[in-house]
Amino acid sequence: MNIVVQKFGGTSVRNLECQRQVMQKVLRPYREGNKVIVVLSAMAGETNRLLSLAKEWSDNPDPAEADSLVSTGEQISCALFAMLLKQQGVKCRSVLGFQAPVKTDCAYGKARIVDIDETKLKAMLHEYDVLVVAGFQGCDESLRITTLGRGGSDTSAVALAAAVKADVCEIYTDVPGVFTTDPNMCSDARKLDKIAYDEMLEMASMGAKVLQIRSVEFAKKYNVTVHVRSTFSDEPGTIVTQEDESMESVLVSGIAYDKDQAQITLVHVKDQPGVSAQIFSPLADQKILVDMIIQNPSKDGLTDMTFTVPRADVDQTIKILEKLKYEIGYEELTHNLNVSKVSIIGVGMRNHSGVASRAFRALADENVNILMISTSEIKVTCLIDDKYTELAVRTLHKAFSLEEGNHTE
Amino acid sequence: MNIVVQKFGGTSVRNLECQRQVMQKVLRPYREGNKVIVVLSAMAGETNRLLSLAKEWSDNPDPAEADSLVSTGEQISCALFAMLLKQQGVKCRSVLGFQAPVKTDCAYGKARIVDIDETKLKAMLHEYDVLVVAGFQGCDESLRITTLGRGGSDTSAVALAAAVKADVCEIYTDVPGVFTTDPNMCSDARKLDKIAYDEMLEMASMGAKVLQIRSVEFAKKYNVTVHVRSTFSDEPGTIVTQEDESMESVLVSGIAYDKDQAQITLVHVKDQPGVSAQIFSPLADQKILVDMIIQNPSKDGLTDMTFTVPRADVDQTIKILEKLKYEIGYEELTHNLNVSKVSIIGVGMRNHSGVASRAFRALADENVNILMISTSEIKVTCLIDDKYTELAVRTLHKAFSLEEGNHTE
Repeated sequence: MNIVVQKFGGTSVRNLECQRQVMQKVLRPYREGNKVIVVLSAMAGETNRLLSLAKEWSDNPDPAEADSLVSTGEQISCALFAMLLKQQGVKCRSVLGFQAPVKTDCAYGKARIVDIDETKLKAMLHEYDVLVVAGFQGCDESLRITTLGRGGSDTSAVALAAAVKADVCEIYTDVPGVFTTDPNMCSDARKLDKIAYDEMLEMASMGAKVLQIRSVEFAKKYNVTVHVRSTFSDEPGTIVTQEDESMESVLVSGIAYDKDQAQITLVHVKDQPGVSAQIFSPLADQKILVDMIIQNPSKDGLTDMTFTVPRADVDQTIKILEKLKYEIGYEELTHNLNVSKVSIIGVGMRNHSGVASRAFRALADENVNILMISTSEIKVTCLIDDKYTELAVRTLHKAFSLEEGNHTE
Repeated sequence: MNIVVQKFGGTSVRNLECQRQVMQKVLRPYREGNKVIVVLSAMAGETNRLLSLAKEWSDNPDPAEADSLVSTGEQISCALFAMLLKQQGVKCRSVLGFQAPVKTDCAYGKARIVDIDETKLKAMLHEYDVLVVAGFQGCDESLRITTLGRGGSDTSAVALAAAVKADVCEIYTDVPGVFTTDPNMCSDARKLDKIAYDEMLEMASMGAKVLQIRSVEFAKKYNVTVHVRSTFSDEPGTIVTQEDESMESVLVSGIAYDKDQAQITLVHVKDQPGVSAQIFSPLADQKILVDMIIQNPSKDGLTDMTFTVPRADVDQTIKILEKLKYEIGYEELTHNLNVSKVSIIGVGMRNHSGVASRAFRALADENVNILMISTSEIKVTCLIDDKYTELAVRTLHKAFSLEEGNHTE
């Protein structure tokens, strides 16, 4: 049994006309003799409409009830789409989270998929040619409805593909695929034919919106081939898959950036054991994501501690640390909102040195000052003044010849 | 464990303000220490909105998908109401058809309840003080969502009350209870304190809208005490319950009428065996509900056959019978749209003669001509010219002193 999984977002199913277009996408693999699992989101705007009802009803809506409430969005889009498809003579049915079943933990609003029962899905695929599955939702052990959090339909699709061992999981989106960098930032940006899971994860964590990060983790874990492609054309998009030799021969696959950052410095912190924990534990407790951290060399028993947080969390971060001023024992707290992160990403870096230094040189040639640096096996990130973001992205894109599809020299 | 079941319709839950009023009704038995099962309909207008979406999507919407679609209406009202209640500190949760579970057959759109699992509901009632259950919906064996047909929430409430052996099933509505007759037709109409199941069934089958007929059948079968009462006051309404002696001492409990009737006559039908089947089988096949039937005494081997059908089915009835004109062998088909049925109903009739003749005399005194008569153990129905409906209802109401609460003389 050849199985294709296809996922369409809220914009793609927002009205009858759009659903008719989606139907054409579904009929292609169906007519080629594949069984198709179509994963749908709620019609655009519906989830927000329901959430605002919840806010009207309660200052602090019960999360389990909120999940039961918003899950109706996908229930509606799936029932309607199945009607449409059935009218074309396709043997199909809608499948809700509890019917599949997509079993999750009971963390309402941000549940994690625990298990998808292959047996039941396979049985349904024997009876029906197309299953129209509600994305974003599942059920916990007691059969209560859960949701996977925003963008969870991507994860639903990948998890279903993993469960039934689908040939491919196609994620339809409003862009043609994954690009070497943001085309709005750099007109030379090129669509990638292929990208490794780890690279995609780094791109996603830097704010590339094309795939939800958890869906990529899932795809990597279960080795699901994901095809990110456009709802508006039949052109192939980008395959997200396991690292292979051809990828390793590419030094850098993409340039990502994140303007949503702020830099905070604690001046003249006492350099003594435990001080890092004193600073960062209370931030972690408030779920503030501290990213780059630099501790200057100590001088007279004092050091400066610099780190980045999402810009939206700056005020809270400052408030927390000012309360702890005497406990931590620093002299001054400064912050800088005008910073951004620019990263070069590529699995090819693992086996090649000199990538970081080539990046630094290219930025220096354009007089872009680097405020902080952090590196991982497959990523080099520079914090820079945010007015240089576009210049830095273009410079690095050019430096690694990404417009051409660069290969190891 | 004392359990109260309460059912509220779509108008009662149509917005936040209305739901707050419903909450007060729920908090009353809750504060008295009862466990409460609240059965809700979809917010007014929502079911029709969803059905019109279905019609837009498909000329002939798949019934199973339509059920999954419209069941979201109750899912939304229940989730919101549970949020509201939870905010008041009440231990509560919403319960959908598949979660209760309310097991039905798979006649989508008009499913019948097969079984409600008492064990699971009782376990939930141990954990929660109030269960907010979605009315109108259930699930079939394969866990697909079903709906019970219009007004099915009444049946859900009664069935749940039967399953958990509730002390009472309160059906909240926009009228204060069940009346001796339609108060819009007769200002002397009096609210009944009590009515027997069989009487309520006859009233409902004559178009009294206060309770869905299947819910009354269910209540009778499982001996559930139903309390029909007003959403807008705290006054007691009408108890629908088993026949008892006090009821039998009442000759007539109510006067019902049905203006939605038409009379059809086949003139000069050959009076031979099988002719009734020839006429009525094809009508039954098309689910046309033939009610009163009269066959005149035969003369020269010919008879006239007169019967009533719902007015909406007249055209189809005529079409069917005209096609069969030569097969049946009648001379002429006439019809009369200007007729209505008026009935006197009461379990007390069983043990008392003279009720019918008293009714005929009262109508005759007012010069109301009776076109057809049919009687059952607890009902006498007269077909009359529909312009006399109001007069007939008032005359009969007066004749049996219903404004006073009549007793056997």
